[in-house]
Amino acid sequence: MFESAELGHAISKATYKKELPLLREELLAAQYDLLKQADFPVILLISGVDGAGKGETVNVLNEWMDPRHIETHALDIPSSEELERPPMWRYWRVLPPKGKIGIFFRSWYSDPISAALQRKAKNSELDQRMERIIRFEKMLADEGALILKFWLHLSKESQRKRLKDLEKDPATRWRITERDWKNFKIYDRFRTVAEHALRQSSTPEAPWTIIEGSDPRYRYLAVGKAILQALRSRLDAPENSSHATLSLPPIIPKIDTLSVLNRLDLSLKLGKKKYEEALEKYQGRLNLLTREAAFRKISVVLVFEGLDAAGKGSTIRRITAGLDARHYRVIPTAAPTDEERAQPYLWRFWRNLPRLGRFAIFDRSWYGRVLVERVEGYCSPADWNRAYGEINDFEEQLIRNRTIVLKFWLQISREEQLRRFKER
Amino acid sequence: MFESAELGHAISKATYKKELPLLREELLAAQYDLLKQADFPVILLISGVDGAGKGETVNVLNEWMDPRHIETHALDIPSSEELERPPMWRYWRVLPPKGKIGIFFRSWYSDPISAALQRKAKNSELDQRMERIIRFEKMLADEGALILKFWLHLSKESQRKRLKDLEKDPATRWRITERDWKNFKIYDRFRTVAEHALRQSSTPEAPWTIIEGSDPRYRYLAVGKAILQALRSRLDAPENSSHATLSLPPIIPKIDTLSVLNRLDLSLKLGKKKYEEALEKYQGRLNLLTREAAFRKISVVLVFEGLDAAGKGSTIRRITAGLDARHYRVIPTAAPTDEERAQPYLWRFWRNLPRLGRFAIFDRSWYGRVLVERVEGYCSPADWNRAYGEINDFEEQLIRNRTIVLKFWLQISREEQLRRFKER
Repeated sequence: MFESAELGHAISKATYKKELPLLREELLAAQYDLLKQADFPVILLISGVDGAGKGETVNVLNEWMDPRHIETHALDIPSSEELERPPMWRYWRVLPPKGKIGIFFRSWYSDPISAALQRKAKNSELDQRMERIIRFEKMLADEGALILKFWLHLSKESQRKRLKDLEKDPATRWRITERDWKNFKIYDRFRTVAEHALRQSSTPEAPWTIIEGSDPRYRYLAVGKAILQALRSRLDAPENSSHATLSLPPIIPKIDTLSVLNRLDLSLKLGKKKYEEALEKYQGRLNLLTREAAFRKISVVLVFEGLDAAGKGSTIRRITAGLDARHYRVIPTAAPTDEERAQPYLWRFWRNLPRLGRFAIFDRSWYGRVLVERVEGYCSPADWNRAYGEINDFEEQLIRNRTIVLKFWLQISREEQLRRFKER
Repeated sequence: MFESAELGHAISKATYKKELPLLREELLAAQYDLLKQADFPVILLISGVDGAGKGETVNVLNEWMDPRHIETHALDIPSSEELERPPMWRYWRVLPPKGKIGIFFRSWYSDPISAALQRKAKNSELDQRMERIIRFEKMLADEGALILKFWLHLSKESQRKRLKDLEKDPATRWRITERDWKNFKIYDRFRTVAEHALRQSSTPEAPWTIIEGSDPRYRYLAVGKAILQALRSRLDAPENSSHATLSLPPIIPKIDTLSVLNRLDLSLKLGKKKYEEALEKYQGRLNLLTREAAFRKISVVLVFEGLDAAGKGSTIRRITAGLDARHYRVIPTAAPTDEERAQPYLWRFWRNLPRLGRFAIFDRSWYGRVLVERVEGYCSPADWNRAYGEINDFEEQLIRNRTIVLKFWLQISREEQLRRFKER
């Protein structure tokens, strides 16, 4: 896989000087077209071998293009706020909006690869994490993002030479730490692990581009041209060429009239006295539970969906009445704001995930995608079809983060709904 | 000041039961009107003596109103992300948008009062901090916020009794900690410090309402009715009754034609060779400076303002070329998003403040308020007049937080501007 990036690619100074002005001009023009169309975001990953010039490449890209519309993220040690949410939260919160470019210097690949490298994770775990990343990137691509992943490679010999050169020069000596030499010692293992991870995560939506890193001029031109080509071909594509692929609907076609909702017994009732006693009892128990020390190590996400007038709001108020106001937030799902519309549809829910020891109660939710948005035609069949899988991935991340996820569907009969509408 | 809250106010169960339904109904109606108008936010502070029922009151308010449109904040220990910004940043980031209610359980008063109480701060420092809070609240009020500040009070004897009662009851014993009794011991000092702080910060825009806390029914009704009255009178006020007070313009009327800008020598030039040498030299020095360990303890805010085509963008690019892309973010100031429009005008700049060891470079800035917004009439004279003071307060907070603030005005002549426009 890395063979083509060990051929000794190099560009002469003269060629570089000749090609650069046009490339810069075209890149800048493409960037402004992207900004003007504001139709999709660009997510750029710069990863690779130590010493292959990742940082310099990111700097050069910012220099060539307009840095006002690029955000560079080098997410290192997670903050306490990030540690309280699922690991992907920190990436979601900085995703570039439509029209902008987000460069990720340390990306969602860094942790899985380094865990596998340090033998903290089994091979199967690396595979599992790659699978999750693939689904995440597929979702981003389906939401319209242009994803460009670059891996800057150095052969073992080039890496040794590069480290030595940097160490020799007084101006760059500070950049080489003991860790770099330690990393160099495990070059072979790193190469094996990285190759495996890259091969697995090179998908049609988000392929890896491997670039030889030893010659800066070659590296810059190669990355710059690859970005330009991808940007241009996307910008110039006819508007109606959908990027979302329609997969097979995961829904069984309706053949008979049986359904879970049809089978519900809507006549169930509770007497007022019994109700009031039980309400108080369970509110009290809920309250005590949230005071236990263990509660500060988990979080709770409640989801309320159902027909209009089915009683979502009043049910939520019966729950919050049992809680301390400092421990919950109710998130009513209304029309998205313009900042939310510039992001994948799950973004507005990710931004509202609770910290540890907190409830987030969603009055309507991400299921809107497969309910109101589907029914009213706010999104294409391809969009709501893929939402089922994306929602599963999202909820799985919550659960892995020790979040209790409880979802309620409130159902009433047609007649009861009409009665309540009239009453209101 | 607290005398009226030591009279033994109490409400009988019968009266409470009679008054409650109407109060709840009216509060809820007012809340929905607030949401529908979406014209101003409500900022509710619940402070006071330990054991006076702050938490219970907040819970009751959430129960009476619709918790979907209330956000309760009990900001305790600051997160690492909060510690890297000025102390008020954590409040700015959770300010309620127009139409919503934000309840602050621990507010911007908590720290100053407890610092004074623990003799960590001098009297003069408390006064100084109160002055800053007054200016902050004045700004919020001028931006349209309805600010309601409640202080729940207990006499010394009532507090003793309340703590004992809670301790006796097995159901509430957990709530009384050693700290509560320790706090009780300094009741007199607390009372003196609090009285001083409250008296100073009780302003026409944001007065304190002191409420006796010993009888829950009295406390709930008093707080509820005060909120209802304030909400109603604001909601029902004629639309054009401006809440912003026009202070005297801090600008000296133009009497002659002398001005700093007129006096600028716009013919200054630098030869290409000299320029390129100096550019490289200073970019290099800038780069080295940002690598020093001390840089990780400060942050830098750069502001670029000036005429169109004066070269803000290109100047910024010469600076970023000297920096590591991981260390800066350029924030272009465009039209505000709808989330930004629902907040005070400084909010969009607060949300973009850099963490430590980072540059935030603003391409146009908060000065837009007194430049384009003033000139184009996007805001009233009262609004841009008060902006001068608010901007000073904002920048002072940055500087106190070890942020280096540098502001550049780029000026060109009328002829040069025309020439550049034609060139573009």
